[in-house]
Amino acid sequence: MNIAMIEAAADRASGHLRRTPLLTSPFLDEIAGRRVFVKPECLQHTGSFKARGAWSALSAMDPAQRAGGVMAYSSGNHAQGVAWAARAHGVRAVILMPADAPALKRENTEALGAEVVLYDRTREDREAKGQALAQSLGLTLVKPYDDAQVIAGQGTVGLEIAEQVAKAGISRADVLVCCGGGGLTSGIALALADRASGLRVRPVEPHEFDDVARSLRGGAIVENPAMDGSICDAIVTPRPGDLTFPILRKLCGPGLVVSDDDALYAMAQAFLRLKLVVEPGGAVALAAALLRVDEIEGEAVIAVISGGNVDPAMFARALSATSTG
Amino acid sequence: MNIAMIEAAADRASGHLRRTPLLTSPFLDEIAGRRVFVKPECLQHTGSFKARGAWSALSAMDPAQRAGGVMAYSSGNHAQGVAWAARAHGVRAVILMPADAPALKRENTEALGAEVVLYDRTREDREAKGQALAQSLGLTLVKPYDDAQVIAGQGTVGLEIAEQVAKAGISRADVLVCCGGGGLTSGIALALADRASGLRVRPVEPHEFDDVARSLRGGAIVENPAMDGSICDAIVTPRPGDLTFPILRKLCGPGLVVSDDDALYAMAQAFLRLKLVVEPGGAVALAAALLRVDEIEGEAVIAVISGGNVDPAMFARALSATSTG
Repeated sequence: MNIAMIEAAADRASGHLRRTPLLTSPFLDEIAGRRVFVKPECLQHTGSFKARGAWSALSAMDPAQRAGGVMAYSSGNHAQGVAWAARAHGVRAVILMPADAPALKRENTEALGAEVVLYDRTREDREAKGQALAQSLGLTLVKPYDDAQVIAGQGTVGLEIAEQVAKAGISRADVLVCCGGGGLTSGIALALADRASGLRVRPVEPHEFDDVARSLRGGAIVENPAMDGSICDAIVTPRPGDLTFPILRKLCGPGLVVSDDDALYAMAQAFLRLKLVVEPGGAVALAAALLRVDEIEGEAVIAVISGGNVDPAMFARALSATSTG
Repeated sequence: MNIAMIEAAADRASGHLRRTPLLTSPFLDEIAGRRVFVKPECLQHTGSFKARGAWSALSAMDPAQRAGGVMAYSSGNHAQGVAWAARAHGVRAVILMPADAPALKRENTEALGAEVVLYDRTREDREAKGQALAQSLGLTLVKPYDDAQVIAGQGTVGLEIAEQVAKAGISRADVLVCCGGGGLTSGIALALADRASGLRVRPVEPHEFDDVARSLRGGAIVENPAMDGSICDAIVTPRPGDLTFPILRKLCGPGLVVSDDDALYAMAQAFLRLKLVVEPGGAVALAAALLRVDEIEGEAVIAVISGGNVDPAMFARALSATSTG
């Protein structure tokens, strides 16, 4: 993994992926006690940053291999990203999805032309099942994070942040990233290490699903004790990736942890102040920026919103927590 | 009014206003039966396009006059725009606001440092009251739409659309704009007449508050019979402006009209497909793009979302209308 791979991914994405803006609000600055910059990947194609990694993986693939079709296992956002990139490349996509994934994510994946196969997230090993399915159908597996081209694609978020933050006159700040398996976090960290070394990347996770924070603290990979019980479905993964963890360990600052209620609060603030629809797992970085102010250093903080694929009922729950209701 | 004034407004806005993206979704294309491009001014500072016109007016003002403070009458979005621009220029802002404006808009206006004075929208003439108040306090009135510099500021949306649509390979299309007094619609029409003459601007209004559509049809200004009864508060105005109407009449195609339910449907689609928070009045152009397909010409349509300052309760109402709830 190096900066040249991220630059190449950005070149292949040109004209296909969106360059998301960097948003601010004086109301958020006041809550956080410092300048808050928000990178809203909910505005990316398919409603999450996963379109970047999927595009990078498919566009880097040998054309003959790609023509045989691709396969992914995903709680939903990676599924939509792969389905979207596969359709744009004109190839088949089969998605292995947990049976309890939000209805919206499943519907969208199917509407994007992919075939969905369900599995039980608490009992079955998705990696084993996914690899078996890919082999039997002759499909190429696109892993959600432990894949160099996927990480390179997510790293394009970091290239954009480096440019946008420099334009805003910021050279030193913590960059908070919603973290599941670590693909987005490691990609951004690689890009910023090269382009904006004063920016320190820090993973943010939900309470009790903080495998990355604990792994970073201990210096070795540890797993989450459970795989369900959080509303932040998009970023609940069993453990950091074998490819992502060494990058996180080398480049990132300490992880931050927020509660489900913190995530709902951040969703409400994004609604009120930024006019963005954010899913619970996509809101944890903004939650940390607003609510873990004593654990963050510097006069500015950058929060990466990872996605916005949330069911209306869950969004209404976040809204009902606002005082202006 | 000419294109040079809009270009000058864009120059003065550089570094202060956001260039909003142009968004798409395959799901919206399918509903509309043509390509749909969305210009989300809900992502503009203060959550609506009004920040553009307010910035333009204040930045064009004589500095000595501006130092005496500014005044505005507004259902809320223009108020926030003027409050924001006044604070950035370091001058006093007094806002005359209807007593029944959404709580969020009033709170935000005050939080942006403005002094709010309330009036009864159904009984009092806001223009008369506003001018009297401005005179007694020595403030300069910034009108919401019947002001050349305000129209020039809103026209910067049109400059961006012309560039973005050309990049997408579109040269002929209807451009649907949420229309109250006509400032945004006339500004965009002026910009596009110069920069992208294949794009035809069309105002969109709520059912029974279609003063602009009826005025265009008859060739002379007519008023709305009532001033309340729509959830689209942001774009309910008594009649087209004296400055805006001649521009609309010269440059725009026929107006489109949608119901409150249509606006709620478009809000839900923007939530689901674009991850945007849109207010009812800001959703009418997207509603027309999705639901008035037989009244629109061409293979593509551009819908300008004018704002996203909506109370959580109203947004929850739009969400409850979705089938995926």
